[in-house]
This record gives sequence, C-alpha cells and structure tokens, in this order.
Amino acid sequence: MKNVDQLWHDFQRPIATADDYIASLKGRTMNVYFMGERVLEPVDNPVIYPSINAMAETYRLATEQPNLASVKSDIAGCQTNRFLHVPIRSDDLVNKHEMQRELGRRTGTCFQRCVGMDAISACHSVTFDIDAKNGTQYHKRFLAFLKRAQTANIVIGGAMTDPKGDRSKAPHEQADPDLFLHVTRRDDDGIYVSGAKLHQTGAINSHWLILMPTMRMTEKDRDWSIVGAIRVDAPGITYVVGRQTNDTRILDGGKLDAGNAQFAGQEALIVFDDVFIPHDHVFMDGEWAFASSLVERFTTYHRSSYVCKTGLGDVLIGAAAEAASHNGVETISHIKDKLVEMTHLNETIYSSCMAGAYRSKPMESGAYLNDEMLSNVAKHNVTRFPFEISRLAQDIAGGLVVTMPSERDLQNNEIGPLVRKFLKGRSDIDTVDRMRILRLIENMTIGRNAVGYLTESLHGAGSPQAQRIQIARSMKVEEKKERARALAGTKDPTSKN
Amino acid sequence: MKNVDQLWHDFQRPIATADDYIASLKGRTMNVYFMGERVLEPVDNPVIYPSINAMAETYRLATEQPNLASVKSDIAGCQTNRFLHVPIRSDDLVNKHEMQRELGRRTGTCFQRCVGMDAISACHSVTFDIDAKNGTQYHKRFLAFLKRAQTANIVIGGAMTDPKGDRSKAPHEQADPDLFLHVTRRDDDGIYVSGAKLHQTGAINSHWLILMPTMRMTEKDRDWSIVGAIRVDAPGITYVVGRQTNDTRILDGGKLDAGNAQFAGQEALIVFDDVFIPHDHVFMDGEWAFASSLVERFTTYHRSSYVCKTGLGDVLIGAAAEAASHNGVETISHIKDKLVEMTHLNETIYSSCMAGAYRSKPMESGAYLNDEMLSNVAKHNVTRFPFEISRLAQDIAGGLVVTMPSERDLQNNEIGPLVRKFLKGRSDIDTVDRMRILRLIENMTIGRNAVGYLTESLHGAGSPQAQRIQIARSMKVEEKKERARALAGTKDPTSKN
Amino acid sequence: MKNVDQLWHDFQRPIATADDYIASLKGRTMNVYFMGERVLEPVDNPVIYPSINAMAETYRLATEQPNLASVKSDIAGCQTNRFLHVPIRSDDLVNKHEMQRELGRRTGTCFQRCVGMDAISACHSVTFDIDAKNGTQYHKRFLAFLKRAQTANIVIGGAMTDPKGDRSKAPHEQADPDLFLHVTRRDDDGIYVSGAKLHQTGAINSHWLILMPTMRMTEKDRDWSIVGAIRVDAPGITYVVGRQTNDTRILDGGKLDAGNAQFAGQEALIVFDDVFIPHDHVFMDGEWAFASSLVERFTTYHRSSYVCKTGLGDVLIGAAAEAASHNGVETISHIKDKLVEMTHLNETIYSSCMAGAYRSKPMESGAYLNDEMLSNVAKHNVTRFPFEISRLAQDIAGGLVVTMPSERDLQNNEIGPLVRKFLKGRSDIDTVDRMRILRLIENMTIGRNAVGYLTESLHGAGSPQAQRIQIARSMKVEEKKERARALAGTKDPTSKN
Amino acid sequence: MKNVDQLWHDFQRPIATADDYIASLKGRTMNVYFMGERVLEPVDNPVIYPSINAMAETYRLATEQPNLASVKSDIAGCQTNRFLHVPIRSDDLVNKHEMQRELGRRTGTCFQRCVGMDAISACHSVTFDIDAKNGTQYHKRFLAFLKRAQTANIVIGGAMTDPKGDRSKAPHEQADPDLFLHVTRRDDDGIYVSGAKLHQTGAINSHWLILMPTMRMTEKDRDWSIVGAIRVDAPGITYVVGRQTNDTRILDGGKLDAGNAQFAGQEALIVFDDVFIPHDHVFMDGEWAFASSLVERFTTYHRSSYVCKTGLGDVLIGAAAEAASHNGVETISHIKDKLVEMTHLNETIYSSCMAGAYRSKPMESGAYLNDEMLSNVAKHNVTRFPFEISRLAQDIAGGLVVTMPSERDLQNNEIGPLVRKFLKGRSDIDTVDRMRILRLIENMTIGRNAVGYLTESLHGAGSPQAQRIQIARSMKVEEKKERARALAGTKDPTSKN
Repeated sequence: MKNVDQLWHDFQRPIATADDYIASLKGRTMNVYFMGERVLEPVDNPVIYPSINAMAETYRLATEQPNLASVKSDIAGCQTNRFLHVPIRSDDLVNKHEMQRELGRRTGTCFQRCVGMDAISACHSVTFDIDAKNGTQYHKRFLAFLKRAQTANIVIGGAMTDPKGDRSKAPHEQADPDLFLHVTRRDDDGIYVSGAKLHQTGAINSHWLILMPTMRMTEKDRDWSIVGAIRVDAPGITYVVGRQTNDTRILDGGKLDAGNAQFAGQEALIVFDDVFIPHDHVFMDGEWAFASSLVERFTTYHRSSYVCKTGLGDVLIGAAAEAASHNGVETISHIKDKLVEMTHLNETIYSSCMAGAYRSKPMESGAYLNDEMLSNVAKHNVTRFPFEISRLAQDIAGGLVVTMPSERDLQNNEIGPLVRKFLKGRSDIDTVDRMRILRLIENMTIGRNAVGYLTESLHGAGSPQAQRIQIARSMKVEEKKERARALAGTKDPTSKN
Repeated sequence: MKNVDQLWHDFQRPIATADDYIASLKGRTMNVYFMGERVLEPVDNPVIYPSINAMAETYRLATEQPNLASVKSDIAGCQTNRFLHVPIRSDDLVNKHEMQRELGRRTGTCFQRCVGMDAISACHSVTFDIDAKNGTQYHKRFLAFLKRAQTANIVIGGAMTDPKGDRSKAPHEQADPDLFLHVTRRDDDGIYVSGAKLHQTGAINSHWLILMPTMRMTEKDRDWSIVGAIRVDAPGITYVVGRQTNDTRILDGGKLDAGNAQFAGQEALIVFDDVFIPHDHVFMDGEWAFASSLVERFTTYHRSSYVCKTGLGDVLIGAAAEAASHNGVETISHIKDKLVEMTHLNETIYSSCMAGAYRSKPMESGAYLNDEMLSNVAKHNVTRFPFEISRLAQDIAGGLVVTMPSERDLQNNEIGPLVRKFLKGRSDIDTVDRMRILRLIENMTIGRNAVGYLTESLHGAGSPQAQRIQIARSMKVEEKKERARALAGTKDPTSKN
Repeated sequence: MKNVDQLWHDFQRPIATADDYIASLKGRTMNVYFMGERVLEPVDNPVIYPSINAMAETYRLATEQPNLASVKSDIAGCQTNRFLHVPIRSDDLVNKHEMQRELGRRTGTCFQRCVGMDAISACHSVTFDIDAKNGTQYHKRFLAFLKRAQTANIVIGGAMTDPKGDRSKAPHEQADPDLFLHVTRRDDDGIYVSGAKLHQTGAINSHWLILMPTMRMTEKDRDWSIVGAIRVDAPGITYVVGRQTNDTRILDGGKLDAGNAQFAGQEALIVFDDVFIPHDHVFMDGEWAFASSLVERFTTYHRSSYVCKTGLGDVLIGAAAEAASHNGVETISHIKDKLVEMTHLNETIYSSCMAGAYRSKPMESGAYLNDEMLSNVAKHNVTRFPFEISRLAQDIAGGLVVTMPSERDLQNNEIGPLVRKFLKGRSDIDTVDRMRILRLIENMTIGRNAVGYLTESLHGAGSPQAQRIQIARSMKVEEKKERARALAGTKDPTSKN
Repeated sequence: MKNVDQLWHDFQRPIATADDYIASLKGRTMNVYFMGERVLEPVDNPVIYPSINAMAETYRLATEQPNLASVKSDIAGCQTNRFLHVPIRSDDLVNKHEMQRELGRRTGTCFQRCVGMDAISACHSVTFDIDAKNGTQYHKRFLAFLKRAQTANIVIGGAMTDPKGDRSKAPHEQADPDLFLHVTRRDDDGIYVSGAKLHQTGAINSHWLILMPTMRMTEKDRDWSIVGAIRVDAPGITYVVGRQTNDTRILDGGKLDAGNAQFAGQEALIVFDDVFIPHDHVFMDGEWAFASSLVERFTTYHRSSYVCKTGLGDVLIGAAAEAASHNGVETISHIKDKLVEMTHLNETIYSSCMAGAYRSKPMESGAYLNDEMLSNVAKHNVTRFPFEISRLAQDIAGGLVVTMPSERDLQNNEIGPLVRKFLKGRSDIDTVDRMRILRLIENMTIGRNAVGYLTESLHGAGSPQAQRIQIARSMKVEEKKERARALAGTKDPTSKN
C-alpha cells in the first residue's frame, strides 16, 4: 500500500461512537506481543482490553458532552474529536485541559490519547516554520493528513522516545544506528525507517502514529531527523506490550480484585524494520535544526496535558473519603485534614496547568502554545504531589488495602462468610462495597493504575530533571538579579561601566 | 465636618504622581504613635518613610506603565489608578496580579495598597446584593463614594481584623463590646463607631479607610454589622504603628545595614473612639446576614493578591544568584539546582494565583470574583513556599548574612580596610556591593521585610487554617466520592435505593 | 491435645538451620486459604514460599553470624535465636536493630518474625506486673512457655489487630462480640477463644502465636482481655492469606518479572472458632487494666522494629545506584544528589530507631524497653521517608520500571532479540541484568514488596495518627512552656500565685 | 609576654562560678569594635552583654547540676567544666549532648562554648596521630595546655573559618596570603601568624582561642597548616562584632521588645596581625597532611553539637503552646497537631545527634569520636527542621508577632491603656505576659536569636552541601549495590569474572 488514498481506504466511514472505535480495532493484522505470545486480536485480550476501553472513553465523552470533547474544525470543515484539534486560541487549551481532567475522573487511568494530540499540535507550527525558512511543502502535507484524520475521527498516537543507547553520543555516533529511529533508504514513493520507540502510550490502540525525533539533532544526524505518519498496522512494525503491576489480576476471575476492572493504561515497545512512509506523510526529512523546536513544543504541550492526573486525584480523594465514611471516621479532624491536604495538592497541580493554558501565545502558524515556564512548573509538581496524595490515601484507607483476601475467598463457602463478617465496617455498608473501594485505592496507589498515576507522572513528557533544565532556561535570572541590584543599590558586575 | 462635600474638600485636585501623593500626606492632623511617642508628621519619620515610599511606588508605576497600573473607569469616567478599580472582566484580575507582582519586584516589600482595593471590590457586589434583597440604597452610595475616590485618585485602605477577645463568643456576647467595631449611636447625619482593628496594613499611609466586619455575624450582632468609609484623619482615631524586626536600623546611620533602605511595609493598631460616619459613607448598617458574603469575597480577592510575594521572590532569587556570582560559585550544580527550586516554588504560587484570576466569574453586580478554590489554594501555597525559598536563599548566601560587620565599621579608619580586605569575594566585585546584596538577603529573610515576606504570608488574608476550611467547603467531596463509586462499582450509601 | 507436654511434643528437636525450619512447616494440618482455595501444603505453594524463605533467612543469619542473630538465653540456658530473646540490657535492643537492618538488606522484604519477638518482650514485663499487683502466676507460666520455645528454637508469631467493628464502641458494646477476640467459655483445662485478627504478619509461617488485645480495655471487657499462646495448627483456626500486588507474577514462568523471586512478606486474616488454650499458656485472663500497658509496650518495641526498613532502603539505594550505573549516569550531579538524599532519609530513620534503643530503660521485670518518645518518632519517620526514597528510586531508574517487556518476551525467538537490542544500556552491561535490577526496583516501589516497604510502613505497629497521639502524650508540653516563661519573664497562668 | 607561665599568670585562680567568669572578662585590653566604635569594656556593652550572659550559663549549669556540666578530668586531676573535657567514652558524648540541649533550653540561644570544646577534642587525637607518625611532641604540649585550661576552668574558643578568597585556589595560590591564616615568621620563642577568621562564635567572650586550618591543605600550604592556642587579648588581634537582626532593640528602653533580654549569641570577625604563639602552644606547624583529619574530626564533633538546637526547639514549642493557651485555643485539633509536628521534628534531630554519640568509636589517642555518617545526617536535619518548626510557631502565634506595638507604647499614658485593652487574650491572662511570649517567638523566629536558631543552623559546622559530600563519602554505595545484585541475581559489572 504505497498509495496514500489506499492507506486511508479503511477510514472512509468516520468513527462516531465508542463502539465504532472498538469495532475499528478488530481484524487488523498487527505484530503484537504480550508476555511472550503473539496477540492476534488485542480487543479480545482481557489484559489489553481495559486500555482500549479507556481510549474508547474519549469517544464516549464526545458523544455525551460534545462541547467539551469535540470541536468544529476549520481544517476539515466538520465536527471532530477534540483530541484531533490544533489549538488556535487560549480557550482551546483551557477546554482541552478540562476535557483531560474529566477523562481522568471517568477512567481513573491514562486514556492514552494525549500524545497524538500534542504531536499534531507541535507538528502544525514546526512544519509551518520549516516551510517558511526552506520553502518546503511540509505544512500543506501535514494539513492534508490532518484533514483526513479529522474527517475519519480516528485515533492518532505519537511516538517519540528512542532507546538512545550511549547517552554521551549523538545519534550518528552510536555503534548501532537503530538506537535512534532513522531513514534507511529513500525512493520515489517515500522513505523507509528503522529503529524503535520505548514505552509508547496507547500505541496499539491507535490507528496512526506520528513519529518524531526525541531530542536536539546535529547536522550529521540528518537521517535521524524525521517526522512522519504511519498506519499502526504498517508492515515491518512489531509491538511488545509492557508488563504492568497487577496486569494479570484481571485473569483471576471476578473483577473485584482488579480494583478498576474497566480501565487501564498501555505502554509498548515499538520496533520498526524498514517501515515505509509515503512522501505525503513525511513532515520533516533531514531538517535537523528544527528537531529541537519540535521536541520543545511537544513537551510544552504534553507537560500541561498531565492535568489529567488531577482527574485521577479527584477519584482517589473521593475513594479515600468513601473509605473513611465506610469506617465511620470521615468527620474525625485528622481525616478531614488529610482530605484537605490531598485536595490542596491536587488543585495546585491543576492551577499550574491551567495558568499555562490561559497564558498561551500564538506561534507563526497560528497555533497556540502553553506558557513554557508554567507548563514545566506544572509537570514538575506532577512529579511530586501524586506521590504524597497517594500516601495520604493509603493512610486514610488503612492496611487492609494490601492485606485483603481475594474475591475468590468471598465466593468460597467456607471462608466467604468469615471474610464478610470480619471485614465489616460501618453497619449499614455492604462489606463487599467496602472491599471494592479499598481495591480501587490499591489499584491507584500500588496497583495497575499506580503505573500511570505515579511512575508515569514522574517520567512521562520528560523526567524531573528535564523540567528543571527548562525552568533554568526560562527563569530570566539576569532580570531577577537586576531587580535585586536595584534594591540593594549595587553595580551590575557584567556591565562595562 | 459632618457634610460629605466638606470631607472631600481636601481631595479636589487629583493625585497625579508619587510626589503628589507624598505631599498629600503632609500636614494632616492625626493621632499617630510609634514606640511610645506621638509622630506629628509621619512622612518625616525615617522609620515610617520607607513604607510611604513603597505606597508611592504604586503611583510611580502608574506614571511609568499606565497600561499596567491605571485604568479608564466607567464609574468616574476618567483614568484612575488600578488600585481603585473594581474588576469587571477576568482580564482586570489578571492585570491586577501582574501589577502586584511588578510592584513586589520594584519594592521587595509590602506596598500596602491591596487591602483597600480588595475592600472596594468586595463592597461593590455586596452592596448590590443587599439592595437587591432589601431595597436599600447602599450600592448607589458606594458608587458615589468610589467615583469621588477615583476622581481624586487617592489611597483607600481597608480595615477588617477586630481584636475578637474570647474567640468562643459572638460579638454581642463579649464582655467588652469594643472588641469588635460597632455602632455606639446614630443620629440624623450618620453613625458613630467604636472599637479597634489590629495590624492594619498601610493604615496611616492611606487617605480613607473602609471599615468592614471581620467574620460571620448573627442576628444579635446588628450593631457590629457595619461597613463604612472614613477619612484616616477623622476625629477619634488613634494609630499605633507596630514594631518590625530591625525597624530602627535605618536610624543607625548609613543605609547599607538596612538592606533595603528605600522600601518597607507598615502595620498599625487602629483605635476608634466614637468616630462619625455620615450616612452617605455607610455601606452596611445592621444587615448581619451579608457579613459573611463580604468577608468571603474580600478574602477571595485578597488571598490571590498575595501574588505580590512572587515579585518579592523574584528579588530574592535574583539576590541569591547575585550573591553566588559574587562568590564565583553561580555555575556549581547544587547552587543552580537551588535557584531552580526557588523559581519552581515561586512560579507555582504565581500559577495558582493567576489561574484563579482567569477563572473568575461575574457576580450580580457585574464585578468579577476570583475562583474561590484556587484563590485559597494560592494563598495556602504562600503560607509555605516563601519559607523554603527564604531558607534556600540563606543557604546560597552563606553565614555572612547574619555575622557581617556594620556599615559604620566600614567607615572606621582602623577596621574599615580590614573588613574590606577580608570580606572580599570574587576579585572583580566591590566588597561593599557584596555586603549590600547580603544585607538585602538579610532584610528579606530575617530582617525588616521578612515581616512581609514570611510572617505576613502566613497570616495576611487569613491564617493557614482559614484556607483549609475554605478548601474543605469548596472541594465537592460528594462528587469525588461518586467518581470513585463509579469506578469501584459500589452503591452510594446515602441513597435511598 | 489438651496436655501442654503433648502440645510441645512436635518440637522436641531444636530447629538448627533454615532447612530444619522449612522442614518443620511441612505436614501440618492447617486450614489455610489463598485466593479461594485450600492450601494443603503452604511450603509447596509458589506464591507463599517466598514468604517462608524470608522467614528462613532469620535462621540462616543465625547460622552465619551467630553473634548477631542468636544469643545465650538465661531463661533456657542455651543458645537461641535472637528473635526469641527478651532484651535485658540496652545492647540487646541495639543488637536486635542491627539484626533487623541486616535481614532487611538480605531479603528486601518483611521477614515477619518481629511481631512475635516484640510480643514476647511485652508479655515478659506485663505478666510480671500483673503478678506483682494481683498475686497471680502469669509470669512463671510465661517463662516456662518461653523456655520451651527457646529450647526448641521455634518461630513465635504475634496476633494483635482485631477487626474492631464500630470504632465508637468498646468490645463488650459491639453488636457482634467476635469483633474482638474473646473467651467464650472456660473449663478446668483452659479457656476457649473466638474472634479474628486482621493482617497478621507471617502467621502461617510461625509455629506458635501469642494472642494479645489490641487496645485499652474497660472493666466490662474482661472476657476480651486475654493473652495466650497457641499452636498455629490448633483446631478451630482458619487462615486467609491476603492478596499482594503482583503476588501471582511468580506463577508466570521465569523469575525475572518477579523482581525479587526469593523473598516476600505475608499477611493473613486469622479466624478463631472456639480455640482452646490450656491454662499454662494463658498469660492474662480478665486483667483488663493491664491491656493498655501491654499494647503500649508492644507498640513501643514494635515501632522501633521498623528499623528493618532501613535495610530495605539500603537495597533500594543500591538498586538505584546500579541502575544509574547501567545507564552510565551514576556520576551526574543530580543523580548523585538523589542518592545522597535517599541515604540521608534512610539514616535519619535508622538514627531515630537506634537512639530509642540506646536510651531504653529497664522495667520491673528486668526487661528493657525502648524510649517511648523516640520509638514513636522513629516509626513516624518510617511512615514518610520510604515513600520519598521510593519516588527518588523511580526517578533515577526511569520509566522502564513500569513499561518493560516480560521475561517471556525475552525467551521468544521473534522478539527476544529485539528486546535485548533496544533495552541495551551501557555497552558492557548485560541487558538482562539491567532488566533484573529495574524489576527489583519495581518490586520494591510498586510491586509485591512495596506492600511491605510502603503500605506496611504506614500502618504496621500503628498508623501515623497513633504515633502522633503518643508523641502528644510524651512531649511534656508543660515543661516546655515553663522554659518559655522563664525566658519571656511571664507568670504561669495555671499557678495559684 | 613570650613566656608561657606569664601567659597563664592571669588564670591562677580557677573560675568557679558564673560571676567569677563575668568578672574575669573585665579589665582586659582588647581591640574590639562594634558598629564602628571601639568597645573598651564589652561586659558593660548592653548589646554584647546578653552573649556573655549566655556563656556564663555554662558555669551556672555546672554549679547547679555538676554531674551534667562538669567532669573529673584525668588530665588535670580535678573537677572541670564539661566544655573542657575530651570524650574518652561514648557516655561522655551522650552527656555532652544532654548538657547542650539543657543549655539550649535555659538560654534559647547559642551559648557559644561548643566550638572550643570540639576543637580540644579534635586536637587531642590529631596531635597524637602526628606524633605517632613524625615523632613530634605536639600531643604532650597539647595535654600540658589542656591541663592548665582545665585547672583554671577557663573558656576556650575555637577559630576555623578563613575568608578563603578565590575558592578555586589553594591557600598558597591566593593573591593575598592573608586570606588564610598563616605563619609569617618563626623565631626561637615561637611563631607569628597573620590572617583572619570569619564569624567566630563567642570569640570575645573566651579567654583563649585555638586556631585551626579550615580545610584540606596541600604540600605547598605548609605555612598555612597551623594549629595553636592564643590568649584572646594577645597583641595584634582585632575583633569586629557582627550585626545581628534586632541587636540594638535592647537599647530601646525596656526589655519586653527584645523578647529574650537575658541571652543572645555572638559572632565576630577576628583579624590577626603578626600574632605571636610560643612553641608550647603550637600543636601543628606545617604538617599539612593532617589538616583534613583535623577538619573532619572537628566537624564530626561539631555537627552533633547542634543538638543544642533541640533545646531551642523545646523553648519555641513551649512558647507556641503558651501563646495558644493565652488565646484559649490550645486544645483545638489543628493547634495540637502543629505542636506534635514541631515536637516530632525536634526529636528527630535529637535522635540523630544522640545515635551518633552512642555509636562513637575510640581513636588511637583514646578520644571518642561521634559516628561520622550519623553526625552529618544530624546536622543536615538541623539545616531543615528548625525552619519548619519556626514556621509552625509563627502559624500558631498569629500575626501579632510582627505587628505588635512596643513596650514604650505600653508605658505611654494615652495609648498604653488602649494597647492593653485591645491586645487582651484569654480573660485571665495579663496582656503584657501575652506580649512577652509573642516577643519571645519573634526573637527566635525572625529576631535576634533567629540568627542562631535558623541561619546558624544552616551554616554552622558547614553548610548543607558540606554534609551531603560527607554523606556521599560515607554511604558505602558499593556495598549497597552488592545487596541489590544479590536479590536481583545480577553480576557485578566491576568484577573481572
């Protein structure tokens, strides 16, 4: 399928609903592995399905609250999911963040669609800037691609993080060129790429992927300076779904032990072996000097996208309050105080994300970008506060979170009644409901969705040190020194006078 | 002077500049005390003057950056200082906060004019609401008052914090009725009030004061449910200026030891003994049920006003960076890392203040109010982060901050050269400049302006626990529980079914 | 088996080695359930076995380092495991803590034997005190019991935490008397007890259990004021082993994914249905007034026992350093700084535990008890710092901790080579070794042993609020006030003068 | 006075009491400056006197509690103050720390005598080691010196911190050799030194000073590698007393505003101009290789000496509790919780200091040295927790701490009654007592003694980064890695196999 129209043939009928979306994932020929085995139909895999269902929630929300989760696109001239929309005013970013928090609340996990959204937004302005400088046609190509995607209302994923190998070396200096995704050959139809991307969110739940470089490139890294869009089922791609804490609990039988049986995140290793990209889907090819812009803009968008974790925070605060209520201790002062602290931290994250959206500025292409300092500050808070919120949730919930019998014990005739009798909380509360809430807290603080709430909050969109570097760059320390000198009445040591 | 026009007679010529402002404070007959002595002319008092100069900076900024610090008022039909403007769109609050941060940067201290600004804003909507409910004329009166104030471009202060006495008792239950400001008598011309207000910011640097109740009132507290405007030199008022750390350092001779000789804050005890308020300046008289609205709106405005501390943070970060540079250690990794941490905390405060401004909503009167949750979250961060920023500044600056010889030692022929020789930092840095920067850090972290940067950050606009109570009220815990139940699959224990 | 000698018949040959210990667990008739199924031979259960092996390490250490982990007992006149020794000098507590840290280092998990040790220590003095007051014979009985246990060198577990039901009610007021363990009847041979104990550490890996009340009792709670020793295989006992995060990973095939395949903790619900205790093994029966002493002494011992977590901290710090080394970034300043911070927090915990041991004091029975204030302070630090150490470990390790392919993927011919190629770190490091270290970090921070390192650190030996109550009791606030008054020159408001 | 006996002539009569001590400071001829003026008799200077009185408390304590604050010396064969005792068993260090906490409680400030004590202890072992290596006689000389000092029961100060100049250069590389104290010439009688020491604690309140190098020396720094003892009134020494926050408040009139009028700290710049040291008082002269041992041992002793701050913490916790009691809010849950938190932090510091004392080890000379890791951990906690304790104290105390009228206002007939009326707290509490307690809190958190409680806690005995470097050196990271490898089952990458 080297012809672009052919590539889009499967997406002629727009995806309108969550069910459409799930149906659209079936029957694809993909090379997906999980725990050493080929997964022919991921939709039918009970471990993978909750991640698909979390993605599907982005469609459900658009159906239920179209103002929040869809938008009329000027590019495609139709209503499309907000995850396919490039922000062209501050309100677009504000609404995006509201949508993300709401989806966090609805799923209690990573719904995986933000990477692609932020990739689109970053490509919009970078292709524009490359063309302005070099007279290329990337932006036009990109808009054509985006129009098709919006019209089809598909899921676009993003793929950025290369393995990197020896971190002291540039891509072209690596012993193995595949440690960064790169062009292996070019022909009249397009280019061929090889390499890999690590821990890619929602990869196999997407329809298309946008491939992007992971860091600043140098002149000799031209072949590694590639942006392009591919179908997830393009020949030559292999996916290895990563293991998550408690991932196989869902296989144990009932749903109780899973804590949140409906929703989960997904991250995969993607390996590319001479994967073809037609020219129309190539949005950067060798313009190494723009790689850093792309990365910086993508991370600025994406760090603010971590506002979703405040939605997870809402769920966890609610679960802790409910657990306290089940124990009859919700009004005790130290419990209330802990709930307030959790809320304070959660809203602090929210406010830094939102302030960066409100203070977004337009770029040359017309796309709006979050305030860089505030976006980094927001993400940096995300690398800290969910851990403390989680600790406080466990504090309120009590040790049962990690010592509770299984659902199967409940079902056993001998011990089921004993478990019910002795795990009783407040007299009017069903013991099994009490257990369900505690399992949800386990799920979010030390179980499957703690992967997203905690570890991904640390490393997604860049590890803490990456934010510190950006904060250092944006902090205008010379201006601040000048303010100090003005009040202290001292000379500027760097001035000639 | 019972006639309102008479009361405004001294303010016929608008205050245009900082010099005008300072001139306007001279020659008033006020009962001001400091350290046990009557201060006949505060402008001439070297301890008090820096606080006047900080207030004057609000005029200087309006002159230098009129877009930032002044606004065309619909009420008065003229340009007026932004501190006299009632916010009627979100941008007004955003701009207000930008102005506050800038004034923090310019003064490194509390410039004292926010209380009055926030009092005006709160009165605007509360008088409107009382009238709507009771058919009174307070809003009209208030607008007339505000028109005069805007036209004259004066400084309005606010006065809220009553002594409170026995905190388990309502105002009318106190042994001494004066422990809350109250009406002692009424006549055809107006009302008479007695009582006191504690630690009132910039009181004697104002022209007028708006008196407000300090907390929720009950039906029997009608005489304590009073809002009104008075001239600061109204008969019957006594001011006792509070002591500040290092307040008298400025009297020691040179300016170096003061750290920031230009600017300082001011807080005073104000005692009212049968002070007259003409009816036209009474904006609430007995409508006890609206006292809580007034307090909540005022504190919501005022808690966000603590964005000014990020301006102080800018100065302190700059001073720490400059001190590191003077020592030749600015590029050492742990120093850089501490500067980044200071900036991260400072911008976190900023973002929570700003998010609350952007998310402001209009009230019935048309005035916009910051988002209540975010404003409380913002202030709560202010009660924490400046202490850590301050600790880090001292860490970077070194022990000299608190062990340095005095400026007079520098001037002494015997030891001046020795101090210069042995306090030398980087060879190209003037030792005295190095000392000045360290004194500025002392000033802001353990000296006179630490009063504003630290202790006032804790208690101004309400102590930490007050924010926690508001966060608890605004946190929508039942909605959050519902989200948890939706994911855990449990029943709502409070529902009938 | 109502005869005491009969009860000890199975323990005639002392357990000398870890192998002896494991052998001793086999062939017992116990009513153990896990995930809804009866577990006839827990030693053979692959999920349970790692917890047995962790317990076995206490024997291995005694063999390898007898000075550290065994002691010559004056009671039994023979060498016995230190876990069976009652501290009779400060050094005993110091050595106990050193042993605990070392076992934490060797296992990276909870080795489960501390509850029983601390139960023995607490019973020693409380039985002595009861006898001194009431002329009973509990202490003599207890010493006879302990002599047998020391001679046989068995594992004694402790069981304290009752379900508690409605927390506003005393045991005798509960709707269901079984919500606290209680005597159902008495006969000439002994007593019979019913009830349950929640999340009991290492219960089924023990030989005997000491049952203790969980809180202060009142006069009407006599039947709930019971201390006694039972064989874990006594008739009438049912065990339900709790689920742990990732507990079934070990069943997936290889050992890599488990992170720590050798060692794990164990907590179980224990249900007692008319379980017989012969008089010789009853150490309190109705002496309700001593229940609070028992609980306080036990928790004082046990809170300091959490020094074991510093051994886990050592492993986690080492794992993070090794992961950084595998990435070639160990010498980067922010990495080094995080390792230092982890160490600082870990050693702070250690020092508070150790200081409390050194400052232990003898009780009437001759047993030494840790300093109460410091023991509570130590545990309170344990409820905080492991969470931050864990966060920093994940920060250093990177996102792969939660997105890594499974061991089975490594074994697959198609994708195994790809995983090896793309997960390569430093060129001289085996990729599989890199994965093993990352899985160990997962295990300790968000996997099976995070249960012990994090959640159990919060709640074991009492939740955070329990320590705060004890700190409040021990803080001597009146003495501190007197010190303040002495410096401020003020009167004592509580004095008559 | 080149003869050693002559130098000791003034100290023939042992100092027995605090009054003796104060008398002993009078009539000395010293070159002391404060605020640009020569201070002929520091004892009579009201700003300096509180620091003398704090030092005197070390004598008062020895009189009142001889077991705590004095010791029978084997060296002098008589009872001497514990501050002159070299620790020769762990209990000596434990008792030292108990004494330091008690003095912190009694004075609420830095009592200044620890530097000299820790200098003595460090010199004891280092002189022993030099002699053992080089066959010199330093240890004998040192013991003779110490015997005289103990017999006379005098105050020995220490002086370590050189100005350092360009921090990238060794002493011998500095443009100005005086930036590190060094030998200028030698003759038959002794040596002559020039240079300076910055912020030396209690310098002018001492009788003798021990001069020590401030850091590791190199072979070319022989002339800078000097240890020796001098009388504080030796010819050629100039002292410049540093300014402290609020230092001159004591001059304002009454004592109330000072908060703690009795006690304060003292730090001075000391300049040495060819100061003579007779050979008998030289304890190192050119043995550069031992400079680092001296510094490390001194700092290990001295970092643990910061246990004194827990005594200040006791006072501040007591003052906050008393302030809460004066307001009638002591039993409110958030107040109690803050007092518990303050105590928890304070006792955490205490426990790390004490653990390091208990775990001290003997050196070759027989002197005991605190555990190095724990001593650094202890001091590192001191650089953090007092700031949080201080913030919480201000939180409890309220804004009056920084806005209160002066004592002189109380004395004024017009406003004194108003201040009394409106600053009334609980009805049975004297308003002036309330003010005194608040002023004490001001004194310790933002006033004169905050210098010692906060800033000195950061920088004394080495700034935070100095501890981090020592923690990194002591953390045995390779052992920790080995533990991780043992559990993960991985190879040691550094091993040959």
